[in-house]
Amino acid sequence: MTSPLRLGIAGLGTVGVGVVRILRQQAKLLEARAGRPIEIVAISARTRDKDRGVNLSPYDWEDDPVALARRDDVDVLVELMGGSDGPAKAATEAALAAGKHVVTANKAMLAHHGQALADRAEANGCALRFEGAVAGGIPVVKTLMEGLAGNGMTRVMGVMNGTCNYILTRMQDAGLTYEEAFAEADALGFLEADPELDVGGIDAGHKLAILAALAFGTRCDFDAVELEGIGAITIEDIRQAADMGYRIKLLGVAQMTGRGLEQRMSPCLVPAASPLGQLEGGTNMVVLEGDAVEQIVLRGPGAGEGPTASAVMGDVMDIARGLRLPVFGQPAGTLAAARPANSTVPAAYYLRLQLIDKPGALAKITAILGDAGVSIDRMRQYGHQDTSAPVLIVTHKTTRADLNTALAAVRETDVVLADPVAIRIEEV
Amino acid sequence: MTSPLRLGIAGLGTVGVGVVRILRQQAKLLEARAGRPIEIVAISARTRDKDRGVNLSPYDWEDDPVALARRDDVDVLVELMGGSDGPAKAATEAALAAGKHVVTANKAMLAHHGQALADRAEANGCALRFEGAVAGGIPVVKTLMEGLAGNGMTRVMGVMNGTCNYILTRMQDAGLTYEEAFAEADALGFLEADPELDVGGIDAGHKLAILAALAFGTRCDFDAVELEGIGAITIEDIRQAADMGYRIKLLGVAQMTGRGLEQRMSPCLVPAASPLGQLEGGTNMVVLEGDAVEQIVLRGPGAGEGPTASAVMGDVMDIARGLRLPVFGQPAGTLAAARPANSTVPAAYYLRLQLIDKPGALAKITAILGDAGVSIDRMRQYGHQDTSAPVLIVTHKTTRADLNTALAAVRETDVVLADPVAIRIEEV
Repeated sequence: MTSPLRLGIAGLGTVGVGVVRILRQQAKLLEARAGRPIEIVAISARTRDKDRGVNLSPYDWEDDPVALARRDDVDVLVELMGGSDGPAKAATEAALAAGKHVVTANKAMLAHHGQALADRAEANGCALRFEGAVAGGIPVVKTLMEGLAGNGMTRVMGVMNGTCNYILTRMQDAGLTYEEAFAEADALGFLEADPELDVGGIDAGHKLAILAALAFGTRCDFDAVELEGIGAITIEDIRQAADMGYRIKLLGVAQMTGRGLEQRMSPCLVPAASPLGQLEGGTNMVVLEGDAVEQIVLRGPGAGEGPTASAVMGDVMDIARGLRLPVFGQPAGTLAAARPANSTVPAAYYLRLQLIDKPGALAKITAILGDAGVSIDRMRQYGHQDTSAPVLIVTHKTTRADLNTALAAVRETDVVLADPVAIRIEEV
Repeated sequence: MTSPLRLGIAGLGTVGVGVVRILRQQAKLLEARAGRPIEIVAISARTRDKDRGVNLSPYDWEDDPVALARRDDVDVLVELMGGSDGPAKAATEAALAAGKHVVTANKAMLAHHGQALADRAEANGCALRFEGAVAGGIPVVKTLMEGLAGNGMTRVMGVMNGTCNYILTRMQDAGLTYEEAFAEADALGFLEADPELDVGGIDAGHKLAILAALAFGTRCDFDAVELEGIGAITIEDIRQAADMGYRIKLLGVAQMTGRGLEQRMSPCLVPAASPLGQLEGGTNMVVLEGDAVEQIVLRGPGAGEGPTASAVMGDVMDIARGLRLPVFGQPAGTLAAARPANSTVPAAYYLRLQLIDKPGALAKITAILGDAGVSIDRMRQYGHQDTSAPVLIVTHKTTRADLNTALAAVRETDVVLADPVAIRIEEV
């Protein structure tokens, strides 16, 4: 196995350039570890004439990534263009059809088309690897699929969108409003072209859908992920949560229950003293729980040239070393369609209500909660304003369904001045 | 590749029983993931007649682990006896000589004989895997050897002895003396038969030597690890460190420098707010730093039936799936003998001195430090007793060699009442 492994790289943004840089600077080290040279044969990107700070002249240029994928002298397509469909999907499909391996960092493509691509890759005997698609530099795909392969996984959690965590951290630490922190993240270039991908939880939801498939042997099903972004989180909630010893994080949770698979990406309260609670800024964290290993926590940079290129190179090295695994860890044909079971795992909730400041208002609310089977663990009223009384409630464990019933009834009363805020408290 | 993978398990202590349990309880899941059944053929342990809480009757019994290793119907020896030499080494060598793969959780054997065993395994085309040898359930060997294979590693750190971290945490949280915390750990059964393996840093040093070899492509060299245990840490140091925003941890650090490879396992001050500083009790943590990935932190249970069995099973699954890598990630013959370069990486130090309470004492000490080129960042005197004055000093960065020169001179003065305490402050 001393023949070189020949790469075609499609996409020369931050990550693509990072991969080229590693391959140029670490050629000897990579060859020693892989037992064979790893070479770039050809590259492709939208714009050819652009200074990317790295010498690309040794490599053949292809305008069309599909043509790149089909080249006879390419063993592996490294797809770093992004986008769930379009050129990324076309090039990936072309590579697999031509019997070539694919390494990608494309979470949207995997989340939407993972099952179909896995079917195709396995039918053609190709590797399809995607470590860079989830949690940047953290090798969580490998940890889950290989390191923890002896475990029946029970729960997977993750803070996997650095931009959201940056915004929430700035609200917490600098007392910024959501709008101010958002504007700051925007000015720093942290936001996707469509910011809803970040703050709406979509990007992180893609990652969660991929992890859930790996953890539970289920077909990747992004549409079953319950999504709730961070746009409704106020500085008031951040402060009140902190006061009770919690932090608010955009947390993804995938959990297999007797009822089916729960997948949700939503703001959650987590204990301030827990590893998740202590996570600040753009760093990512994934928590993996299995029946044998108990709990493993992985922490690292969630994005950026070096970290994501590191993840991509891990996949390239695996292919160079001859590792061939089913795309999601077990044959694609054996992955089961999970019964979606969102809102069924009971949890405690943080509620913030803005009540009219008049006698009986609170009694009305507590009666409604009680009728819906939602019992109260802690409650306090604070900071009376002229005519309104904010009330904080922490419930005992309840299902989201029961809570929603209660909140619907609360909204119909004449004693609430604003839509109630309800944030799940995740035990971590 | 649908023929079963047949295991012979030598050693039926906690971890061995854990492995048997996983293989019995998760047989279907493991087969789905590996693409073939994984079976136990035969077992061996010191005592046959002992209730281990799991049904062992289906498996052939071998009194002699070497005979187990040589059985024609065994594909993989799972060595869980422990001990650097003796039966563990004999059985491992017998298995490799017979062309069989070996999975072991034996850190002492790897640390002392890793290079020779790797030579032998690779010459015979066998896998030799040891995820369970380092940091319990944390898949750090896989992460380093595979996930981060695209990185030039720069530093590897770890808190990898749960017993020491338990003792230090109890001193910190409950105000126990070292002796009290040690006695508590002993009563809880946390200590090795020879406690020096734990509190002397030897066990953790074994693990560090293994990680250093993986990270830097060097021959595993436990003898080059600078070892310092936790026995000299006092409650006073814990308190003073906490007061300055630090925690004291038994921290392993391996670092490649221009001068060679530094490997040390010693108490260190780390920032209380860092992931390492926040690590409590028996949990382990490994910090991996590479030129591309920046920093990855892995946290998980460092011992115990389930977690270590999870690590062992990860290796078994890799072998079942056909993964074949050089033992230390690159061919054993290409691993370089590293130049040991301990005490050469500059660091800040925490010093605690017990001075005679008389004029000029402090001036004498600061002059000695200055003469040795050790400059002072912060200093304070506190809690005068009758005739003695404790002094705390935090130095600027200095080499351990310069510091040792200074401390030797300090000891020779007539103003110190006790041996000076010096603890490295590690930037994390």
